[in-house]
Amino acid sequence: MDFQFYMPAKIVSGENAVEKSASLMDGFGKSCLIVTGARSAAACGALGDITAALDKLSIRWCIFSRIGENPTVSSCLDAAAEAIEFGADFILGIGGGSPLDAAKAIALLAANPDLDGGSLYALCWKNKPLPIVLTGTTSGTGSEVSPTAVLTNELGRKRGLSHPDLYADLVFADPKYTYSLPRSVTVSTGLDALSHALEGFLSPQCGSMDSVFAKQAIPVLWRHLKDLHAGTTLTEAMHGELYYASLWAGLVLNSLGTAYPHPFGYVLTEDFGIPHGRACAVFLPSLVARAMERAKGRAEEFLQMIGCDFAEFQSVISALSGCGNVAMTAEQISGYAARFHGLKHYKNVPGGYTPEEAEELFRSLFLKP
Amino acid sequence: MDFQFYMPAKIVSGENAVEKSASLMDGFGKSCLIVTGARSAAACGALGDITAALDKLSIRWCIFSRIGENPTVSSCLDAAAEAIEFGADFILGIGGGSPLDAAKAIALLAANPDLDGGSLYALCWKNKPLPIVLTGTTSGTGSEVSPTAVLTNELGRKRGLSHPDLYADLVFADPKYTYSLPRSVTVSTGLDALSHALEGFLSPQCGSMDSVFAKQAIPVLWRHLKDLHAGTTLTEAMHGELYYASLWAGLVLNSLGTAYPHPFGYVLTEDFGIPHGRACAVFLPSLVARAMERAKGRAEEFLQMIGCDFAEFQSVISALSGCGNVAMTAEQISGYAARFHGLKHYKNVPGGYTPEEAEELFRSLFLKP
Repeated sequence: MDFQFYMPAKIVSGENAVEKSASLMDGFGKSCLIVTGARSAAACGALGDITAALDKLSIRWCIFSRIGENPTVSSCLDAAAEAIEFGADFILGIGGGSPLDAAKAIALLAANPDLDGGSLYALCWKNKPLPIVLTGTTSGTGSEVSPTAVLTNELGRKRGLSHPDLYADLVFADPKYTYSLPRSVTVSTGLDALSHALEGFLSPQCGSMDSVFAKQAIPVLWRHLKDLHAGTTLTEAMHGELYYASLWAGLVLNSLGTAYPHPFGYVLTEDFGIPHGRACAVFLPSLVARAMERAKGRAEEFLQMIGCDFAEFQSVISALSGCGNVAMTAEQISGYAARFHGLKHYKNVPGGYTPEEAEELFRSLFLKP
Repeated sequence: MDFQFYMPAKIVSGENAVEKSASLMDGFGKSCLIVTGARSAAACGALGDITAALDKLSIRWCIFSRIGENPTVSSCLDAAAEAIEFGADFILGIGGGSPLDAAKAIALLAANPDLDGGSLYALCWKNKPLPIVLTGTTSGTGSEVSPTAVLTNELGRKRGLSHPDLYADLVFADPKYTYSLPRSVTVSTGLDALSHALEGFLSPQCGSMDSVFAKQAIPVLWRHLKDLHAGTTLTEAMHGELYYASLWAGLVLNSLGTAYPHPFGYVLTEDFGIPHGRACAVFLPSLVARAMERAKGRAEEFLQMIGCDFAEFQSVISALSGCGNVAMTAEQISGYAARFHGLKHYKNVPGGYTPEEAEELFRSLFLKP
């Protein structure tokens, strides 16, 4: 039993949260850089709600909409330069994980103009970031409630940085922005959220609070992932449940970080273009199988929570993650395995984990003769 | 469904939390005023752990141990003067609700030497408080995770002040400090925690997160209150469960505040010397009865959670609160009722509440011919 907790972001949630609680942005300053991807922030209605709210508060704003999926450090540097030129007092990210993570980095870079990519990853800066406001538009990332930003470095590799300075100051959590997501995005982000909750729940580090949070997330995520697998069109209420479940999962992520599905998944995203959530999820059955050997009670509790046996879990995840066509050579796999030495994520694997086991897992999943 | 949340204090919990996580105090400065009651902070071992940790970090400290139960604004002003004279960089409260609430006010007063009692209650100050560290020693207050301090003003009346500035920066949550509490204190503080969870759970304002938190707290608190009622001596493990349950209940308090049992209870404490938790609890059966009329589903869910019927709930609470001898005249009751006009707490009562109903409730409970 324990009660470890730290998550200082203020979350306001519910329908029209932006409109109802816009005044909470009043203290952050008189000008704002809005950070988005190319289209979805506008398409889902969030951008319109945000700009209307800022206008009403007489806060100047401009938009940086060039954040791609798996955002690069260099795009964050560009955005930070724009923030400085515009005189932005705070940064407001709208989107799924990519714009939200980028917004955190941009807030930091804009407050520390001398910072480059290297010192960013070294967690070495002088000034606190500008205030950070986040508006989630997918049911996946957990970025809203975590101090993490995952960015793609100059070598094309995804790397996460976590620091208490990177918590949002304010989060608008209105599930309506997720209603119009394409099915493929709902699937991938839902799998990401499930990964956050499950990697934490099976971790030897999982504490009592983490368990409580994971148990709020897992059954709901699983139910709607199964709906998606069955071809059901999600209702708005289902989307709402999915979104809040992704925040509960985010609290698990916030407390524990992730196990190997996340860093292993980065490889599938970088080199095979598999969307993040699907790329992580393909490793979940192996993690559950591991738990069945090394943390049996926990694995059983998980399967009971989702109301199905391992075979069904594996089959649904395998279908949704859709990585069946990923094929690697033995050389490729050895190359990846070299990156997996000393991963801090192994502390979250029941019984620990070794690079050799990682290599074997990749061979079993992806080696094609 | 919703996901409203704000509780920025960092909580480190578990056995020897102070020793293990002392370094978290490193950023708060080089001198510390420790705020305690007369005896318990030393008796339970917390004071020794804290001073050892501060010594190890080469942080100067001095102790202000003159915080009584239901701490007065004037004792907080005295302590703040001592903090200023000592050059304290931060304030560290050890105790149950009284020293913890006082520590918050002292941190604020020390940072704002011109502040008097009036502007304190008007929530009107210029500077942020000094950093606040809290070490809980009872399973009741919830002060660790709330932005509230309840102080007794110059008229001898308990009044709460709540402001985001009053959150702790850091909380050491080690249940071992509660192991040696006298039974009477465990009963009263446990009843206080139950009140926090139950007043929130039955509130029309109770959201999804609040429900989750309340459901973590209520069954555990009830189980051990029944143990105490039955004369069982609590084991250390039971004390631990009780302490963490009090923090879950504190999260409900943090989000929702309280309903009428708290402000009504203040009267019994001020004029009849009934300890705070027992003074609140005497009003809980009436609140549950109210919910049975106006929020039936919720009341039933509560009774199911504790696994007993209303009569048993009422009988256990009545025995533990021990207010059977409180006797008031009709004039006294009318006088109290005048104080109950416009209480913000009524928004947390199923169906709302009126001062007339309050007067009737007092007559039914305490009027003695």
